[in-house]
Amino acid sequence: MSLNSFYPPVRTLMGPGPSDVHPRVLQAMAMPTIGHLDPEFIKLLDGIKSLLQKTFITKNEATFLVSGPGSLGMETCFANLIEYTGTKILICVNGFFGGRMKENADRCGAEITVVENDWGKPVDLNKVEEALKADPGIKVLAFVHAETSTGVLNDAKGLAALAGKYGCLSICDAVTSLGCVPVKVDDWGIDAIYSCSQKGLSCPPGLSPVSFSAAAVDFISKRAAKVQNWFLDVNLVMQYWSGEKRVYHHTAPANAYYGMFEALNILHEEGLENSWKRHYENHLKLKDSLENIGLEFLVEEKFRIPHLNAVKIPAGIDDLTVRKRLLNEFSLEIGSGLGPLTGKIWRIGLMGYSSNYKNITYCINALREVFNK
Amino acid sequence: MSLNSFYPPVRTLMGPGPSDVHPRVLQAMAMPTIGHLDPEFIKLLDGIKSLLQKTFITKNEATFLVSGPGSLGMETCFANLIEYTGTKILICVNGFFGGRMKENADRCGAEITVVENDWGKPVDLNKVEEALKADPGIKVLAFVHAETSTGVLNDAKGLAALAGKYGCLSICDAVTSLGCVPVKVDDWGIDAIYSCSQKGLSCPPGLSPVSFSAAAVDFISKRAAKVQNWFLDVNLVMQYWSGEKRVYHHTAPANAYYGMFEALNILHEEGLENSWKRHYENHLKLKDSLENIGLEFLVEEKFRIPHLNAVKIPAGIDDLTVRKRLLNEFSLEIGSGLGPLTGKIWRIGLMGYSSNYKNITYCINALREVFNK
Repeated sequence: MSLNSFYPPVRTLMGPGPSDVHPRVLQAMAMPTIGHLDPEFIKLLDGIKSLLQKTFITKNEATFLVSGPGSLGMETCFANLIEYTGTKILICVNGFFGGRMKENADRCGAEITVVENDWGKPVDLNKVEEALKADPGIKVLAFVHAETSTGVLNDAKGLAALAGKYGCLSICDAVTSLGCVPVKVDDWGIDAIYSCSQKGLSCPPGLSPVSFSAAAVDFISKRAAKVQNWFLDVNLVMQYWSGEKRVYHHTAPANAYYGMFEALNILHEEGLENSWKRHYENHLKLKDSLENIGLEFLVEEKFRIPHLNAVKIPAGIDDLTVRKRLLNEFSLEIGSGLGPLTGKIWRIGLMGYSSNYKNITYCINALREVFNK
Repeated sequence: MSLNSFYPPVRTLMGPGPSDVHPRVLQAMAMPTIGHLDPEFIKLLDGIKSLLQKTFITKNEATFLVSGPGSLGMETCFANLIEYTGTKILICVNGFFGGRMKENADRCGAEITVVENDWGKPVDLNKVEEALKADPGIKVLAFVHAETSTGVLNDAKGLAALAGKYGCLSICDAVTSLGCVPVKVDDWGIDAIYSCSQKGLSCPPGLSPVSFSAAAVDFISKRAAKVQNWFLDVNLVMQYWSGEKRVYHHTAPANAYYGMFEALNILHEEGLENSWKRHYENHLKLKDSLENIGLEFLVEEKFRIPHLNAVKIPAGIDDLTVRKRLLNEFSLEIGSGLGPLTGKIWRIGLMGYSSNYKNITYCINALREVFNK
């Protein structure tokens, strides 16, 4: 017997992610490891690809898992679509993760134009169109669908359409949207999209589902300069995920892939549209209850991410004290604000398996008790 | 009940990795996910760091897990230590993974000198010293400790000493050595080292333990140019792994970290030196048996990786047929050759939890049966 083993506390996860993981997914993660070139594992890859295509609503052949967290998915999209130092890119920023896109593109050597919008407000499509019109040299338009830091849902469909209209490739951050609200890659004409495992898909963190359009793959395959990372090079990764001969790229994290496959199965047993509906209906229930205990939303109703509720911390209430008590007395995690919103908002997530009525009632009652004493 | 769940076959993993995973590690992976900023998770990070320091035999503060497979650990070392386009680096190549180092460094914009050695032979230290002498502008020396593609154990201690003598920072690939043979980071004066989870440590694949010396950290913190990836920037990652204030970087793959902590505990319950001893003794047993059934080693005895046995495929025996039969009839995985050694060698691993007498007897008897009919 080991005296040093780590036994994590059992939390209720209602922050911006990770969300609660379904027991079936946890069980899948504990199955025996097999090799990354085992014929049975290749079948699993095919199964994951097919379910990811269904989830992104795309026929894109280049739909696969990046073997790292969502932030590495972001880096994969930027590293592959920014060809050389000075490639012009337009980035929409209305929160922390738009800012991180800027940081990513900068390190790829891009020449960056930013359309800034207030934190808590959606990206203004008119400003984006003006910027695209002003510089026909812009090659890539990048935006965040659900801005996790503020709870704003941007108009991904409209933004992707603008990219198409002005001849740009589009990069969409779907980290906090996939599985919870409609994300329609083919229909909206998105060229590169990344998400994560630990929010709407309710897996443990560590994987990033991505998808690249035929136009994006064509662009990447014809780049003059190599992709700046060997690990992230879509040309190489696709030789493992596709085709007759599966060329070894890296050792795929087998057990994490097992978990992802099970999570995708759970999602599609429920049905994608049913999942969107559940997330929206639970949002309405939570919203009413939050307002009942006197909390106000940061974001105007029509721009809210339904499954990530950003509410203002009432005057006289200390952020840290409340979150500490929720964690220690109720084993309940909710999210803090990020950047300029630190101490000013909480972010209450109802994502994936966490999106259920039991969690709503528990969270509201815990908040009520903490507020009252 | 789901009809689509994936149930992997139960394999005996005796290739170049992944190796068999201890049931305790698999169980740990199935524990409930908690948040990456949860105080209990921060304790786990500290525990992992301390056990990794013990494993690398180092006091390096910058000892942590890269949240991706070993290949991403490689990229982390190169991206951080190559400062700008034209940074001079010397790379020792005597197999596939030395070649991959070259690919990594190239994408970081380095000016590369290669010391080439035959596949199957060790890196020649005299040639390395000549190359370092010839160009005092060389800033980094990179080498593979255990060259997984050929079964050669290079003289990491001697190579790191040469780096020190000529004022270079050293990068050591310990993907196939850590936990199985001595790897002494402080004693040998290695500046940047990366390994993986799925070989000597017997975790599922997906994580890369790394360690950076104080000199390397100092260099990285003073770089004029930013590290070319946001995700891999040691300056940023260390704000999460160290210090009073744990700054959110990326969402750490909690369950994979649980598995790693358990695996490190298992390793240190046995004791690092006992583990080296077990790997060596089992190598000797396997070696005798392999020779008994007529197989010859590729590598001269004194240069062999004890836990990754590269043997020549006898004339008249077809590589694929044998490996397919081992997999299908015995559920046993051994490794093929890579690159020019494809079809010419097998690589039989006895790493981590796979290194035991039961596996040895099973593998030898399976080979015997396959050879005989």
